[in-house]
Amino acid sequence: MTRDGKMRLGLSMRYLGYHVAAWRHPSVPADGALSFAHFLNTARKAEAAHFDMVFFADGLGIRANDNPKGSLARDMRNAELEPLTLLAALAATTRQIGLVATASTTYNEPFHIARKYASIDHISGGRAGWNVVTSWSDEEAQNFNRSETLAYADRYERADEFVDVVRALWNSWEDDAFVRDKASGLFYDEARLHVPDHKGKHFRVRGPLNSARTPQGQPVIVQAGASEAGRRLAARCADVVYSNAHDLQSAQDYYFDLKRRLAAHGREPDDLLIMPGIVPFVAATRQEAQDKYDELQELIHPLSGLAALYGQMGDLSGYPLDGPVPDPSDKRPGNITSIANNLLEVARAENLSIRQLYQRVASTFGVRLLIGTAADIADEMEEWFRNDAADGFNICPPILPAGMDDMSDFLVPELRRRGLFRTRYEGTTLRANLGLKPNVFKRS
Amino acid sequence: MTRDGKMRLGLSMRYLGYHVAAWRHPSVPADGALSFAHFLNTARKAEAAHFDMVFFADGLGIRANDNPKGSLARDMRNAELEPLTLLAALAATTRQIGLVATASTTYNEPFHIARKYASIDHISGGRAGWNVVTSWSDEEAQNFNRSETLAYADRYERADEFVDVVRALWNSWEDDAFVRDKASGLFYDEARLHVPDHKGKHFRVRGPLNSARTPQGQPVIVQAGASEAGRRLAARCADVVYSNAHDLQSAQDYYFDLKRRLAAHGREPDDLLIMPGIVPFVAATRQEAQDKYDELQELIHPLSGLAALYGQMGDLSGYPLDGPVPDPSDKRPGNITSIANNLLEVARAENLSIRQLYQRVASTFGVRLLIGTAADIADEMEEWFRNDAADGFNICPPILPAGMDDMSDFLVPELRRRGLFRTRYEGTTLRANLGLKPNVFKRS
Ligand SMILES: Cc1cc2nc3c(=O)[nH]c(=O)nc-3n(C[C@H](O)[C@H](O)[C@H](O)COP(=O)(O)O)c2cc1C
Ligand SMILES: Cc1cc2nc3c(=O)[nH]c(=O)nc-3n(C[C@H](O)[C@H](O)[C@H](O)COP(=O)(O)O)c2cc1C
Repeated sequence: MTRDGKMRLGLSMRYLGYHVAAWRHPSVPADGALSFAHFLNTARKAEAAHFDMVFFADGLGIRANDNPKGSLARDMRNAELEPLTLLAALAATTRQIGLVATASTTYNEPFHIARKYASIDHISGGRAGWNVVTSWSDEEAQNFNRSETLAYADRYERADEFVDVVRALWNSWEDDAFVRDKASGLFYDEARLHVPDHKGKHFRVRGPLNSARTPQGQPVIVQAGASEAGRRLAARCADVVYSNAHDLQSAQDYYFDLKRRLAAHGREPDDLLIMPGIVPFVAATRQEAQDKYDELQELIHPLSGLAALYGQMGDLSGYPLDGPVPDPSDKRPGNITSIANNLLEVARAENLSIRQLYQRVASTFGVRLLIGTAADIADEMEEWFRNDAADGFNICPPILPAGMDDMSDFLVPELRRRGLFRTRYEGTTLRANLGLKPNVFKRS
Repeated sequence: MTRDGKMRLGLSMRYLGYHVAAWRHPSVPADGALSFAHFLNTARKAEAAHFDMVFFADGLGIRANDNPKGSLARDMRNAELEPLTLLAALAATTRQIGLVATASTTYNEPFHIARKYASIDHISGGRAGWNVVTSWSDEEAQNFNRSETLAYADRYERADEFVDVVRALWNSWEDDAFVRDKASGLFYDEARLHVPDHKGKHFRVRGPLNSARTPQGQPVIVQAGASEAGRRLAARCADVVYSNAHDLQSAQDYYFDLKRRLAAHGREPDDLLIMPGIVPFVAATRQEAQDKYDELQELIHPLSGLAALYGQMGDLSGYPLDGPVPDPSDKRPGNITSIANNLLEVARAENLSIRQLYQRVASTFGVRLLIGTAADIADEMEEWFRNDAADGFNICPPILPAGMDDMSDFLVPELRRRGLFRTRYEGTTLRANLGLKPNVFKRS
């Protein structure tokens, strides 16, 4: 829970929503992932609802595989706007909501990243945030001169140094270093310039950044690492963590662990906000909410469903969809025998058909699913919020823009009735609205 | 001259204008280079005047040196918005004008560049252009893990391959490859996907790009290379060249040489537009135009002036500004004896003081200066346009936004009276307004 007792809410709006069949829904603009109007429309709804931020996840290329053959051509994750250009365009067309986009430390250079996010922070008047990721997939590596992804430890070692360089660049100039005195002709005060001149294992970056300190001081840093290395990075540098948890206990464990780590870095528990993701299906009645979900489940193309099973079960496209899940065979990809048993056990225990099994796992890309009335979903959120499992939520509507309308119409009013969510923005920057300490850099 | 007999006009608007003292002018917002409102305001004026495009030059860091000591702190080129984020923000807030920004092939990866410009082309509805540069300075190298710039030949070899990869990525999907058929669940037509799978000397990039073909087919490619390697690249790939020439003869030589090279690549003379830069001081009378110029010249801080002489003359800060230019001494930086004689000869021949010499060379960053009435300047432009020296001009106002107002108030009406400039946009894309052939990619 946050100090002020209010939840932070983010809207995650990649593609057309977090349900795998979102693009087939009658209300969804199927070409929306390449349409600025689609994102602007939805971001403005989130702003009208006073969400803290919109968030764009990202991958540097198409990460889905074409297994079974033909599944990729049924997948909406093939074309989208690039998140930093999208963020900049939203910076110029929204006024209050925070704007967070993902950028990889593995396939970028710190100077570019420092500069681009600083620029968006200037354009937006202090609303930019960077979701730091290390990119896990071989598909991304293959777009950047490699055949496979970097080893895990190397990725995070590079990420650690990368973030330090970016922050040093953001602090090249103290607040008010640019005096711009027309009369004397002095543009900046030399005593308030600090050239980073970083020389490390992965990077040599002299600087300074050719930008002033930004309206937020520094853009907000977001992170989403679950591993030990990811948690270390978050505890040291992040202002916000997007997490993924499916039950209260594991969310609490994660929350407790991350907050506990902060002291070692001279930070307080409130300096890092933890926001688990949820995919909410909400309606006036439970039945209507369930109907909304079922409607989308029926729209999952069998090839998309089988693709979601492929990694664990191999190619099941030769079997009847409404028949039983077959025993594992040699046709599966290698090295997955033990994992395959998970899904197989589930299928056996509940006597599921192939279709039922893929509907279980393909729907929300792994994010926690909540179906019910606004009160049902607010109950779940409140329980996590009040019991040290969350400082807010990263809301991933199943379809856009309708899923955001459901938030405005049902969920947000319910949270406000409970005193759990703001009715106006407290500040003008993302940092201020999140309730984080101001970021000041002034020596004297 | 162009086939339609109309000039193409671009507005180059880096920082606060092309005069070194621009920021000190009373009408100029000294913090404008970090202000989106400043650029939007000026871009909208250019759009109202029906300019083809706005153009942002770029350097990846601060390239000016602090010689003599203290000169850098008087220089406006220390802080600015990042051009690709700025371009994306303008894409969302302008409607018709072309949007061109510079990106370096030396310190970027093709996948990022292909993706970002494609995204801006989608956001803007077909108005994006990429100015391809190779970055010459050591200061930029030092922000990207190097101590000095790459050798010239390596830079252009990399640039050649870089542009090819970007274009292959832009052609990952044929026009209309994304069928997005909700009923059948087919998102794209597999026969219209072309995975680049590039394997070259500098890059291995599999692709495909996670974006559809853009409204222009491909963003417009701009180039500004003067050397043999630069001209080869332009002749092979560029749609527009920004050139720099100070007299008709050399402009004609360059024009003739570049147009001549096109046939070898199966291209026609009209497929490449050549647009030299000019810095126009224009007013109702010649005297007023001269006064505008003189006012700015007086605002050049002596340290900025001496910095412009430093490379050739060494540190002259110990000499009286209004006294004679001294003989070269050992205090000059190395290896410049022969070049130093140029400036020295000029100073001696015209009996110039130090101040007069730096006012001669420091003012417009090397771009061609034109001072006079609209008729005077239109005469110069028309002469170049009608005599195979230019297809249009890259206009670099000395101060912003007032220098753009002068274009709208004086120069554009004069060009229109002569039938040399449009009164409305012909098309909806930059490519169409420039009169370039449509870029189509459809096999069947
Ligand atoms: C809510 C959430 C959002 C994420 N967004 C992205 C993303 O946009 N791009 C990406 O490459 N990885 C993303 N990830 C993956 C994480 O960066 C990270 O790789 C993953 O959580 C595994 O953690 P670890 O690397 O610490 O093991 C996301 C993870 C979560 C939980
Ligand atoms: C009008 C014009 C604009 C240019 N803009 C840039 C720029 O924004 N960034 C950059 O690094 N170089 C820029 N250049 C430099 C060129 O890319 C190129 O390096 C220079 O003209 C020398 O040509 P060469 O490299 O073929 O010898 C520009 C040159 C001209 C003439």
